[in-house]
Amino acid sequence: MSASAFDHPILSGLVGDEELATYFTAAAEIDAMLAFEAALAEAEAEAGMIPSEAAEAVRARLEAFSPDLDALAQATAHDGLVVPGLLKQLRSSLDPDVAQALHKGSTSQDVIDASMAMRLQGASLVLDRRLEAIVDAFSDWGLRDGERVVMAHTRMQAAKPVRFARKIASWTDPLVRCRLRREEIAPRAFALRMGGAVGDRAGYGDAADAIARQVAQTLGLYEAPTALHSERDGIAELGSWLSLITGALGKFGQDAALSLQNEVGELKLEGGGGSSAMPHKNNPVGAEVLVTLARFNATLVSGLHQALVHENERSGAAWTLEWMLLPQMAMAAGAATRIAGDLIGRLSVTADAGEVG
Amino acid sequence: MSASAFDHPILSGLVGDEELATYFTAAAEIDAMLAFEAALAEAEAEAGMIPSEAAEAVRARLEAFSPDLDALAQATAHDGLVVPGLLKQLRSSLDPDVAQALHKGSTSQDVIDASMAMRLQGASLVLDRRLEAIVDAFSDWGLRDGERVVMAHTRMQAAKPVRFARKIASWTDPLVRCRLRREEIAPRAFALRMGGAVGDRAGYGDAADAIARQVAQTLGLYEAPTALHSERDGIAELGSWLSLITGALGKFGQDAALSLQNEVGELKLEGGGGSSAMPHKNNPVGAEVLVTLARFNATLVSGLHQALVHENERSGAAWTLEWMLLPQMAMAAGAATRIAGDLIGRLSVTADAGEVG
Amino acid sequence: MSASAFDHPILSGLVGDEELATYFTAAAEIDAMLAFEAALAEAEAEAGMIPSEAAEAVRARLEAFSPDLDALAQATAHDGLVVPGLLKQLRSSLDPDVAQALHKGSTSQDVIDASMAMRLQGASLVLDRRLEAIVDAFSDWGLRDGERVVMAHTRMQAAKPVRFARKIASWTDPLVRCRLRREEIAPRAFALRMGGAVGDRAGYGDAADAIARQVAQTLGLYEAPTALHSERDGIAELGSWLSLITGALGKFGQDAALSLQNEVGELKLEGGGGSSAMPHKNNPVGAEVLVTLARFNATLVSGLHQALVHENERSGAAWTLEWMLLPQMAMAAGAATRIAGDLIGRLSVTADAGEVG
Amino acid sequence: MSASAFDHPILSGLVGDEELATYFTAAAEIDAMLAFEAALAEAEAEAGMIPSEAAEAVRARLEAFSPDLDALAQATAHDGLVVPGLLKQLRSSLDPDVAQALHKGSTSQDVIDASMAMRLQGASLVLDRRLEAIVDAFSDWGLRDGERVVMAHTRMQAAKPVRFARKIASWTDPLVRCRLRREEIAPRAFALRMGGAVGDRAGYGDAADAIARQVAQTLGLYEAPTALHSERDGIAELGSWLSLITGALGKFGQDAALSLQNEVGELKLEGGGGSSAMPHKNNPVGAEVLVTLARFNATLVSGLHQALVHENERSGAAWTLEWMLLPQMAMAAGAATRIAGDLIGRLSVTADAGEVG
Repeated sequence: MSASAFDHPILSGLVGDEELATYFTAAAEIDAMLAFEAALAEAEAEAGMIPSEAAEAVRARLEAFSPDLDALAQATAHDGLVVPGLLKQLRSSLDPDVAQALHKGSTSQDVIDASMAMRLQGASLVLDRRLEAIVDAFSDWGLRDGERVVMAHTRMQAAKPVRFARKIASWTDPLVRCRLRREEIAPRAFALRMGGAVGDRAGYGDAADAIARQVAQTLGLYEAPTALHSERDGIAELGSWLSLITGALGKFGQDAALSLQNEVGELKLEGGGGSSAMPHKNNPVGAEVLVTLARFNATLVSGLHQALVHENERSGAAWTLEWMLLPQMAMAAGAATRIAGDLIGRLSVTADAGEVG
Repeated sequence: MSASAFDHPILSGLVGDEELATYFTAAAEIDAMLAFEAALAEAEAEAGMIPSEAAEAVRARLEAFSPDLDALAQATAHDGLVVPGLLKQLRSSLDPDVAQALHKGSTSQDVIDASMAMRLQGASLVLDRRLEAIVDAFSDWGLRDGERVVMAHTRMQAAKPVRFARKIASWTDPLVRCRLRREEIAPRAFALRMGGAVGDRAGYGDAADAIARQVAQTLGLYEAPTALHSERDGIAELGSWLSLITGALGKFGQDAALSLQNEVGELKLEGGGGSSAMPHKNNPVGAEVLVTLARFNATLVSGLHQALVHENERSGAAWTLEWMLLPQMAMAAGAATRIAGDLIGRLSVTADAGEVG
Repeated sequence: MSASAFDHPILSGLVGDEELATYFTAAAEIDAMLAFEAALAEAEAEAGMIPSEAAEAVRARLEAFSPDLDALAQATAHDGLVVPGLLKQLRSSLDPDVAQALHKGSTSQDVIDASMAMRLQGASLVLDRRLEAIVDAFSDWGLRDGERVVMAHTRMQAAKPVRFARKIASWTDPLVRCRLRREEIAPRAFALRMGGAVGDRAGYGDAADAIARQVAQTLGLYEAPTALHSERDGIAELGSWLSLITGALGKFGQDAALSLQNEVGELKLEGGGGSSAMPHKNNPVGAEVLVTLARFNATLVSGLHQALVHENERSGAAWTLEWMLLPQMAMAAGAATRIAGDLIGRLSVTADAGEVG
Repeated sequence: MSASAFDHPILSGLVGDEELATYFTAAAEIDAMLAFEAALAEAEAEAGMIPSEAAEAVRARLEAFSPDLDALAQATAHDGLVVPGLLKQLRSSLDPDVAQALHKGSTSQDVIDASMAMRLQGASLVLDRRLEAIVDAFSDWGLRDGERVVMAHTRMQAAKPVRFARKIASWTDPLVRCRLRREEIAPRAFALRMGGAVGDRAGYGDAADAIARQVAQTLGLYEAPTALHSERDGIAELGSWLSLITGALGKFGQDAALSLQNEVGELKLEGGGGSSAMPHKNNPVGAEVLVTLARFNATLVSGLHQALVHENERSGAAWTLEWMLLPQMAMAAGAATRIAGDLIGRLSVTADAGEVG
């Protein structure tokens, strides 16, 4: 199936991203869930909530586990989420005592939110690394061409000449700020959202906070004082961050496409796209797709904000909506960073717009 | 890869739709493109624009063709669309004369828009058939339970008793109207958007309109007097239609979830979803997911309207955005119709709210 | 106050529309509500549900009535809608019998939805008339300049020459289709949504349907077989229509802005906007604002689709959202039609791109 | 005119906010523009760029100035923004030397962006103060009722009892985080975006950065190293912040409405809204409108992200879109904080759901 361009055998060549995609496979998703269960058993053993032997047996089971995906899909269709089916498979070969020690005091949302946070944090670090590389590439370009003079355009009309360095700065600075933003939002976006059945951590007993702290540490997530099950601000904020990345690169893409117009010709593109009807065309495909991805995320970010209206202690409706939007937004940001890096390498300045002043 | 829940090995159990998905595979997409090329060659032969032998050879090649998907993905990454790469593969084993007869006077957008229109029309007919079945199911339910009396709620407060038939009508009528709407929008949504390189059909020569008419007929699409390459109103309109379907079913899902609340209990659900922490739960998963799908399409429809701002004769940016949104919106409508049908079968009325009036 | 650009003393010069605005004043809103109450009393008198004398007295009161807006604002803050406060003012000087005859069997939503439908229908007719004028203006332009040859641009690159008539057709045709669409959606968008307290017309007694029919006739609205209180598909559809108008004109604006670039210069603009810093500028303000209005409505249309998830018999949350979005979308369509008409009159073709073919 | 509910004589009682509205009057807007021009003249005099006497004369003119709003509206219709018209009025009675000293080296965007930043910063501080008050009110409520036991609901089904303090925390914590976020985004959202004609500060001469620094200081805005004219990430981020506020309060409103259902009755509301048809109703108007405002801002935030695709040095299309969305989003946040404060004061806990654990 390939309803999404990101998952499409052909279109993923255009808007996909192989590295980012590794965070959104079913395997990666389940691995992260198993990592949560392992960390939880270990922390609960340490807190004396389950026997250490049970924790050991849980860990052994998790390490050896190979899921039956079709059965998980069926179970998910029934339960609305994968965890009950996953636990059933995990417990099927466990002693009753060990089976009980697995996922003790926990709930589906603890597991799924942890898995999502782990993978989104990983994806955010890939994006951060790429933003750094793009900033460097812009910087190198500035060293080469920053003193060239191009025509500034305001309101779609030629205005006055400016140094090309000015344009480069306008493309670079938002990306630098996006790197800073990642650090600001990380404790909220990549928090361990762990609360048990109804978000009060009651099932984890008296040592609940210590357990949560240790699980967060083990998984590399941020510790949160409460469950955050129904508080999705960190998620919407992450979506906005992804859209700020695609938006900044979309602005670059739009500017590149405008400068690459034959009639303007202030930039030159190596290796643009071909046409089935017009062999002379050298289409600024990457530049255009950057605009597409910006508008895609600008569209989807709205849904994440709608999902802030999360009823009571857990909203199946709002939560499922996040699953349908957030991975795609991360993929779009991945594709945009990939494409932008490639595009910069193909562009050069041909303009000579006279003197600045 | 599974960035999209529709393409996800596990989540597709919840929000996927196997029948609808067949319209959005790479294979279906390419098959429809080949069908366009075949219809075009035939029409052009009939108009005397290419020799009949060439048309025959084209058809033979198309029938025997098996695409190299990896190469298509690479070509698409370069060209921004699949057609140049596809033609290269198709032509690789053809005599130069036949190779020239293939796709003669045409352009990528003719091919891709035709393929999309064919498949979306097919998907719309599946949806229409399901809407009919849902309307019937509601009607049957009304025969059984329509005279039961439930409490009407306005502004989230109990208002006055009403016959359950009233609620059923409020769920059914928008679906009936959606069936009517399909017929209204079909000539615009499922038009053959055929115009050659720059949309003026110049490449098709003097017989252009006759050729377009015949291709439309062969493919079962509506004939349009012009290319419509850059006029995307029919597309946005189709997206709105898909969102009206999910919205109507989302309203049903929301109402069902409210009526199924333990404290309200006017409806009863057979076989709701289970919880990993609370075995007593009988979660209204289908009802919730109907709300999710409504909000999903309500989010994405905005992007299709943004894509109306289609620059000049062909906008790579706006067009690619359609590819990223429209198949998913159709899938969401597919999932919603599938889930609604299932949900109706599991629901029964338990209310007895006294007398109407 | 002027939170909205449409209501802003200065910005309304840019994006406002005086004619459309007349449909969205408080006075117009209340007048339409009073018209509903008058039509209702008349129909109920005819059906024998209230005495003719009472209907006469109601009509006399409605004709003489002058509302206390501050008190209405306060009442609306309390009740969430204006009708209870309005009725209180209306009834304050009426005999108890007459007071009881006013609004008999009705509910706030009957009144407000009728008022909205009446005014939106009026607005749609203004838009329709303007679309006709724009189509005519394009047609005239085509007679003058249609045979000029301009460069077609695909994917932001010069492609091949085309006759200017091709561009004009791509701007005109969607508007023609919008006129047709208006007729298709009118019975759903401009229906009388009348149902009494909980939408089953019970309060209107046995003659309910006849009363509804007559009220619809009096008010020039379409008769609907049921209340439609909670079925908002006709509303979302109207919003989509408004966005199709702004989208089509936004595409024209985008094309005009691109053609007006100094480096392209295929169109010439008389009387563009001035700059505070660069006296040589001739900014394509109208063209840009057409893009703005397209993106504005493409954004807001999403909210109307979200509002399809209308809980139970009446959702205060979803309904209020319509009030916050729909008038602005109509205003945006008004501004776009006004600006497009003006813009066409200022544009001429200067291109000479050689020969077509 | 009253296309917007915020500006509507009646509806503003429901969704308006008198205090916030003061930031979005034409008068406030122009005052802030005049303050920018005054600060600029002073800084330029200090830098020796204009004579001190001219700066004095400019200040005197600005202080005495009373704008002709109708003329400004006309000029804005022509130029797409108010500044050229405003300067014409300001300069009409000035000596040529002084006239030249006014706005020297500056551009419309410097003025308008500064005015917007000043007013939005003010609005953000009002919101911050109200968030603090709401957090306090929740805290007080927690002291009173935090130990009461209510039923937690997950996926719209009764789950397990929890202390009411858990619910209060889930409503409070996102607001606390919103206060923190304000501080994080302030330097980007409330920066002085000053760059002259094409954003390179060339017109401000060698002392440009010193001038910008001083103007920022005078106006209480954050200093930015560059113009940021075309970098709108700080704006989109502010919009996201406003939507996080309304989203968090929308979640509270949704929860309140669910708890206030007659069949649930875990909360009790004093002084709910009345109905024109059902005198027994006590409608949770405020709770519903909080949901409305959340969905409104979740809709509009998408448009601000679309506006990140800002062409070249200044995009009239994207910039105007901000003007149409941002003030309304601030107003929605204002209304939400106002309504939430009021709602908390009317709510009390009536639940007794047994024991936690």
